[in-house]
Amino acid sequence: MKAKVEIINIGDELLIGQVVNTNASWMGNVLSEHGFEVIKTTVVSDERLQIENAITSAIKYADIVLLSGGLGPTKDDITKKVLAEYFDSEMYFNEEAFHNIENLFKSRGFKITGVNKDQANLPEKAKAIPNKNGTAYGMWFDKDEKVIVSMPGVPFEMKTMMEKEVVPRLEEQFKPEKYFQKTIMTTGVGESFLAGLIEEVEDGLPEYIKLAYLPRPGLVRLRLSARGVNEQLIQQEVQAEVDKIVSILGDAIVFGYDDISLEEALAQLLVKQNKTISTAESCTGGHIAHMVTSLAGSSQYFHGSVVSYSNEAKNEILGVHAKDIEQFGAVSETVVKQMAEGAKNKFHTNYSMATSGIAGPDGGTKDKPVGYTWIAVSGPNGTISKAHQFGEHRGRNIMRASLTVLNMLRIMILEDTKC
Amino acid sequence: MKAKVEIINIGDELLIGQVVNTNASWMGNVLSEHGFEVIKTTVVSDERLQIENAITSAIKYADIVLLSGGLGPTKDDITKKVLAEYFDSEMYFNEEAFHNIENLFKSRGFKITGVNKDQANLPEKAKAIPNKNGTAYGMWFDKDEKVIVSMPGVPFEMKTMMEKEVVPRLEEQFKPEKYFQKTIMTTGVGESFLAGLIEEVEDGLPEYIKLAYLPRPGLVRLRLSARGVNEQLIQQEVQAEVDKIVSILGDAIVFGYDDISLEEALAQLLVKQNKTISTAESCTGGHIAHMVTSLAGSSQYFHGSVVSYSNEAKNEILGVHAKDIEQFGAVSETVVKQMAEGAKNKFHTNYSMATSGIAGPDGGTKDKPVGYTWIAVSGPNGTISKAHQFGEHRGRNIMRASLTVLNMLRIMILEDTKC
Repeated sequence: MKAKVEIINIGDELLIGQVVNTNASWMGNVLSEHGFEVIKTTVVSDERLQIENAITSAIKYADIVLLSGGLGPTKDDITKKVLAEYFDSEMYFNEEAFHNIENLFKSRGFKITGVNKDQANLPEKAKAIPNKNGTAYGMWFDKDEKVIVSMPGVPFEMKTMMEKEVVPRLEEQFKPEKYFQKTIMTTGVGESFLAGLIEEVEDGLPEYIKLAYLPRPGLVRLRLSARGVNEQLIQQEVQAEVDKIVSILGDAIVFGYDDISLEEALAQLLVKQNKTISTAESCTGGHIAHMVTSLAGSSQYFHGSVVSYSNEAKNEILGVHAKDIEQFGAVSETVVKQMAEGAKNKFHTNYSMATSGIAGPDGGTKDKPVGYTWIAVSGPNGTISKAHQFGEHRGRNIMRASLTVLNMLRIMILEDTKC
Repeated sequence: MKAKVEIINIGDELLIGQVVNTNASWMGNVLSEHGFEVIKTTVVSDERLQIENAITSAIKYADIVLLSGGLGPTKDDITKKVLAEYFDSEMYFNEEAFHNIENLFKSRGFKITGVNKDQANLPEKAKAIPNKNGTAYGMWFDKDEKVIVSMPGVPFEMKTMMEKEVVPRLEEQFKPEKYFQKTIMTTGVGESFLAGLIEEVEDGLPEYIKLAYLPRPGLVRLRLSARGVNEQLIQQEVQAEVDKIVSILGDAIVFGYDDISLEEALAQLLVKQNKTISTAESCTGGHIAHMVTSLAGSSQYFHGSVVSYSNEAKNEILGVHAKDIEQFGAVSETVVKQMAEGAKNKFHTNYSMATSGIAGPDGGTKDKPVGYTWIAVSGPNGTISKAHQFGEHRGRNIMRASLTVLNMLRIMILEDTKC
C-alpha cells in the first residue's frame, strides 16, 4: 500500500497569483520519487477556518499531510497557532530553536526582536524539526497513525527540511514502494499522431505501468511510470516498454530521455562528434542562438550567429545574392539556403542552420501567410531545406521554427556520422 | 459581497511536480484583479473519484468553480466524461466545435483522426465555450446559482478562453466591485533601494491603497491598487500616488507602466523617434536580439545582430582589432566598444548595443570572475560603456546583462532627443 500524501500550501500571495506555487511541484516531485503517492495539493489563505478545513478534509483520505507556509514572525502568519489549537496543545519555549534563531541573527549582524523570540515557542504535542536556514522550526504531529507536518513556506528552508528531516522520517515510518519513471522526449509530431503510432504498445501496457503525454510547445514528452516492491523488476519492465516505443518512433522523433532539452541533445552530439555550428536567423531573431548559448560550455561548439533582419544584412554580411532576394523574396528556399551556407562560411563551422519566415502577426500574404517558414541546415555534404506552415502566434512560430531546425540539424549529423 | 472562486487544476503531471502549476497563479491573478475572491486552489489527478470529490467539496463554499486540464484527446484525459456524468448529461455532437477542429487541422496541414473528432462531443447541459487556439472546447455548467466551468489545461488556450469568454461572462453574472491598479515598471535598482527612495510616499498612502513590490530578474514592478464603489475616485487617487512616486524615481529608473516590457518601452521610443538599432552579442548569446524580435513589428527598427561567440567572429565580422582582443581580452572595455561600433556600421543603424562578459558557470578568473560583464551602447554622439558584476547564475547573468544594456540604450536615446 502506497502512503497517500496531501500537500497544503498556505498563503494569500499564492491564491492571488503574486507568487507561483513552485513549492507544490517541488514537493510533489520529491515525494513521487520516494514512492509516496501525492493525491492532492491545496492552496488556502492565511485564515484559521480555511486552514482547519483543509487539514480536516485532507486527513480523511491522506496518510500524510504536509503543510508549508504561514510560519513567519508577522501577524498574518497564523499556521502555528491554528495547529496548536487544532491538536489541543499547549505551547512551550524550545531552547534549541531559540539558539538557532540567535545564531542566525548573529551571523547576519541583526538584533533579535520580540516577535523573533516568539518563534521559539512550539506546541508540546509536536516534535520539533530543525531549520538551519531560517527562524521557523518545523512541527511534526502524530495522530491516529497519520502524520501532519508543518514547514516554512520559504522555498530553500522548506527544501532543506524536506530532504534532511521530513522525507527520511516518512520513509522510516511508511516504508514506501519503489517508483520508477522514464520520459521519452519527442519532437516534430503532435500528440494525437504519436498516439496513433504507438497505439498497440499503449493498449498492451500492463496495468501498473502508466503512460502520460506531456506536451510542450514543439515537443511531446512521453512518460512511462510504475510502482512496485521489486525495484529491479519494475525498472526492467518500464525499460522494455520504452524500448518498444523508441523502436517504433525512431531517432528522428525521439531525441533523448528524462527532460533533456533538444539543444542539450544536439550539444551532446556535437561534443561527441567534435563538430561546430553557427546560425543565420531571420524570423527566429536570435532565439536559436539564445537556446544554444543558454547551455554552459556552448562556446566549445557554437561560433556565432548572424541575425539578419534586414535584406541588406542578408546580402552584405551573409552573402545572399541581392537579385535572389529580389526575385524569390526573403522567405524562400533559395535565400534560406544561401543564409545557411553564408553562416557556415563566415563562422568557419562544420554545420549551420538558417530560418526565414513570416513570424507574424503582420506581413503575411496569400502565397506566404503568417507562419510560413523556410528552414535550412548545411553541412559538409551539402545543404537541405524545407518549408513549414506554423501557426498564427508569433512567439510559438519562433519557438517551433527554432525546434524544427535544431532537430533537422540533429538528424543531419546523425546521418553524416552513421557507419 | 465578493463572489468566491475555487480553482481546480486537473493533471497527474502537476501532482508529481513535472509541471509547475502556473495556471493557478495566472487565474488567481486575473480573478483578483476583476474583483473576485479566490478562496482555494486544488490540484487533483486525472481520476474520476478525485475530480468528483473536488467539485463536490468546492461547490460547498465557492460560488464559482473553475477547472482546467484533462480535456485532451488522449485516454488519460477524462474531465469531460466525468463532468457529463456528474451533471447527469447526455452528449451531443457540436458542429461549431467540429468546424473549429477542422480549421485548426487544416491550417496545420494535419489529418483529423477519430479521437480528434470525438473532441466535438459535448455535454448537452453545458454551454459550449469556443477555443480558437485548440481542439478542446470549454464547458459552462449552471447549477443552483453556482457556476462550474471547465477549460483546457494548455496555458495559452486557457488564458485566451478566460480573457475572452469566461471572465466577461462571470462579470456579467456576479457584478464584482470595481478594482483599479496601476503598475510602475522600474529597472536598474533593487527592491530595498527603491523602498528607501519612496518611503515617505509609502508611509502616507491612504489605507485603501495598497502598494506591492513585485520583483522579477532585473526589474521591480511597483503595483498600486485600490478597490471601491466609485470607480472614478479610486482611479484618480491611485493615479495621484503614482505621479508622486514617478516624480521621485525619474525616467532612468521608470521605463513604463502596467507590465510593459523594457523592450516594448524601447520599441515605442524608437518608433516615435524614427531610429534604428542593431546588436553585437557575446555573453548574451542572442538573447537581446530575441527579446527585441519577440515584438511584432520589430523589423521596423531592428536591423540585426551579430552573435560573436568566437574571437574570429568579433574580428572578421564586427571588425574588432585582433590585437586588442589579444591585449585586453574579449571581456574588456576596448573590445565591447568596438563591437558596438562594428554592429552600428555593419547594420547601418542609428544606435547599437554590445555585451561581452563571463556568463558562467565556467571561464571565470580572479580578475574577471563569473558575472563580470562589459556593456556598451553606441549612437550618433558616441559610444559609452560600463562594467558590471552580475551573479553566479548563467541564465540570470544573461537576463541582467540584456536588461541593463537595453535600459542604457533607452536612456541614451532619451538624452539625445531631449530639447
